[in-house]
Amino acid sequence: MLTYEMSKRGQRSLYEYLYQCIRDDIVKGTLKAGEKLPSKRMLARHLQVSVVTVENAYQQLVAEGYVYAQEKRGYFVGSIETFVQGEKTAIAYHQEAEKQQWRFDLLGGRNTEGFPFSLWAKLMRQVLTERGETLLESSPSCGVLELREAIAQYLLQFRGMRVHPSQIVIGAGAEYLYDQIVQLLGNHLCYGVEQPGYPKVQQVYTLHGAGCARVPLDEGGMQVEAVRQSGAQVLHLSPSHQFPTGVVMPIGRRQALLKWAEEKPERYIIEDDYDSEFRFMGAAIPTLQSIDQAQRVIYINTFSRTLAPSLRMGYMVLPPVLIERYHTMMGFYSCTVPVMEQYTLARFLSQGYFERHLNRMRGLYRNKRDRILELLQNSPLAGQYTVQGAERGLHFLLKLPTQTCDRELKQQAEQQKLRLSFLSEYGGGEQHWLLMHYPGIPLEQLEEGLALLSKLL
Amino acid sequence: MLTYEMSKRGQRSLYEYLYQCIRDDIVKGTLKAGEKLPSKRMLARHLQVSVVTVENAYQQLVAEGYVYAQEKRGYFVGSIETFVQGEKTAIAYHQEAEKQQWRFDLLGGRNTEGFPFSLWAKLMRQVLTERGETLLESSPSCGVLELREAIAQYLLQFRGMRVHPSQIVIGAGAEYLYDQIVQLLGNHLCYGVEQPGYPKVQQVYTLHGAGCARVPLDEGGMQVEAVRQSGAQVLHLSPSHQFPTGVVMPIGRRQALLKWAEEKPERYIIEDDYDSEFRFMGAAIPTLQSIDQAQRVIYINTFSRTLAPSLRMGYMVLPPVLIERYHTMMGFYSCTVPVMEQYTLARFLSQGYFERHLNRMRGLYRNKRDRILELLQNSPLAGQYTVQGAERGLHFLLKLPTQTCDRELKQQAEQQKLRLSFLSEYGGGEQHWLLMHYPGIPLEQLEEGLALLSKLL
Repeated sequence: MLTYEMSKRGQRSLYEYLYQCIRDDIVKGTLKAGEKLPSKRMLARHLQVSVVTVENAYQQLVAEGYVYAQEKRGYFVGSIETFVQGEKTAIAYHQEAEKQQWRFDLLGGRNTEGFPFSLWAKLMRQVLTERGETLLESSPSCGVLELREAIAQYLLQFRGMRVHPSQIVIGAGAEYLYDQIVQLLGNHLCYGVEQPGYPKVQQVYTLHGAGCARVPLDEGGMQVEAVRQSGAQVLHLSPSHQFPTGVVMPIGRRQALLKWAEEKPERYIIEDDYDSEFRFMGAAIPTLQSIDQAQRVIYINTFSRTLAPSLRMGYMVLPPVLIERYHTMMGFYSCTVPVMEQYTLARFLSQGYFERHLNRMRGLYRNKRDRILELLQNSPLAGQYTVQGAERGLHFLLKLPTQTCDRELKQQAEQQKLRLSFLSEYGGGEQHWLLMHYPGIPLEQLEEGLALLSKLL
Repeated sequence: MLTYEMSKRGQRSLYEYLYQCIRDDIVKGTLKAGEKLPSKRMLARHLQVSVVTVENAYQQLVAEGYVYAQEKRGYFVGSIETFVQGEKTAIAYHQEAEKQQWRFDLLGGRNTEGFPFSLWAKLMRQVLTERGETLLESSPSCGVLELREAIAQYLLQFRGMRVHPSQIVIGAGAEYLYDQIVQLLGNHLCYGVEQPGYPKVQQVYTLHGAGCARVPLDEGGMQVEAVRQSGAQVLHLSPSHQFPTGVVMPIGRRQALLKWAEEKPERYIIEDDYDSEFRFMGAAIPTLQSIDQAQRVIYINTFSRTLAPSLRMGYMVLPPVLIERYHTMMGFYSCTVPVMEQYTLARFLSQGYFERHLNRMRGLYRNKRDRILELLQNSPLAGQYTVQGAERGLHFLLKLPTQTCDRELKQQAEQQKLRLSFLSEYGGGEQHWLLMHYPGIPLEQLEEGLALLSKLL
């Protein structure tokens, strides 16, 4: 008979605890496929719980596919096939629920519109055919040379950055690169992150056991004085277009931070240039990397925003002194991006497709942004709101004319299947600043989405 | 005029330091493409070094493509194109050197022989066509369900492991999975690694700031007593076929280690099953994962040995309690393997190709091993050597009848373009145990390679 110490359930309800115990025994194989479970009545008596408790636990197990019921015979442990069936149902259900839930998702949404899939597939087929079995050779730890060359050329032409291909390290997305950086610089250092800011940055550093200091921002981003007070030794910044405030760091501030970094060894700045490609107006300010004279800047970017998040390709540019350290300490790591994807992206970049794609996307996003601003001006909200950070990037901030607190407004919107997100959720102090992240909404639905928002206020 | 503090060069030679200073200025853009460098004589006088020092530095810069020389006009800073040319030459040179150097590589060599590339390419094309744009949707953090299902089925059929697909996490290769595990369990724990053992394991844990204890092995692998003395809380083992000793851990030892793990919370065992697919004789001993009753085992495997190292795909099986922790703490990470590769591998597994491939490779490797053993028996070494760990895996140990120390023998072999590797290089105390890692050598060249080895002794 199944025996579990029900008193060990902690905060969990009786039925939840029983469900978990049985599920774990099934997963571990203690209960084998086809095995009959005790009847509800018998198990209830044995464990001294109510029959309803056992019934609820069994029902949950059936719903998730761990157990199946046979009429008049009782309950049996499922095989892996039924598990899988169960997980499939659960996942399909979640996905369905997700889709149904949001009519308009102003937070993230899918960001793959406009991705030239058939062209990408064509390049992949070319690479498969032309490279053949050489695709089985391992790439160098820092990525294949062709891709690093293509990225260096791109950075030179479009960001004015003079970077040697040997300074570039390819990795499977931004979070993987954060993970590599904290290994490279060490978790004994204190990492200064932007407040408000992108939460994954701090999550990665904290998971590696590094200290994190939240540095408050003003209208120019991080201030040197605030950095000094925080005790941070390494800064993680997005000077081109900060998330979520949309702040663009002025050149004077950039130079001041570089001076701060030069004061002591082990001070570094991580320049996270995550959506700098989408600049609609305003002058281009040089990247920190390009004005760094003292080898203190690590530049990171990915193709998640510009191509598709599922591609999992990013890169970092290390100063010469750190690239040497990287090869010595971390050269044993294999590159996390498959060779096939690396060559496909190299072609996409060097044959001019990326440039064309960016130009098209810039037009598309500019239209969307303009349409939103136009709809706002013609709405009942006209004259009562403030827009911030709309000159670049794929989101801006909208100060709403409301007294309702952000949390309440968010809940009300949820009932309308509208997903909202506020500055205050990212550690920003002020209320009523809504994040307008529009790539996920088709142009023709913008009007409906904004009307829904206006009605809420 | 270029001004560098030559007294700051530390251990480096004058020319090396000067070369690095100028190179860094070029990479940083302080020296711009096309800019003329001072003449050798002038720079030598300015820096108070000899003309030969400057000449050597300039020559190195020219060789690497940072600088080009124009007859009678002097030296100029190269453009990115010339950098790239330089790096290409350097890389081609290294590759060429590598190829020329080893006639027989008994350490690693390429491990892609027999990979069914055209079949793989066909499956990729199918996935591209059939899945189309859905390939742009992000995969769940732990990988796409189809692949996790296919792996669960494989583990059930071929390793007798009952694993739920929701316990599986896909990641870009073994080192990436080690990196994830140390984040999951924490770097405050002490990780016990095998001595002798696979060096990358300790490298990853150390880079994450975790303590590492080297646990000596006996003829059954790690002993519980040795584990206790080491102070380790988490063990990293390869019980199926230890690298490099080839030891297979007996069932009693496995159970004892599991009991040790159950004694305290935060004790875990990482079961690294890196080449268990190649068992030629001897009974299958159940994996630690399959006899673990207390949710203390994390199982890891990759497709690097069985398919190709460049594919960068591996997985870990977490016990239910850790999979929950994974989703809570690390669910924000994106999966590092592209969706495309995940679906291709899922098909390769579920359509039976992997099984057929493994059967073919087992035959191929068994033939190679038998041929080596036969050649040894017919060599002048007959009766004087000992073989250990040849029942499974892609390498075995060969005790050589020699008095020459390993280092000297290695150097002598190098002159014959034969790459050798000894147990003593992996932290094993005893001399004269040669690692025979044979996948990289074509069957028809084995005789020549072994003759070369015999001649050395």
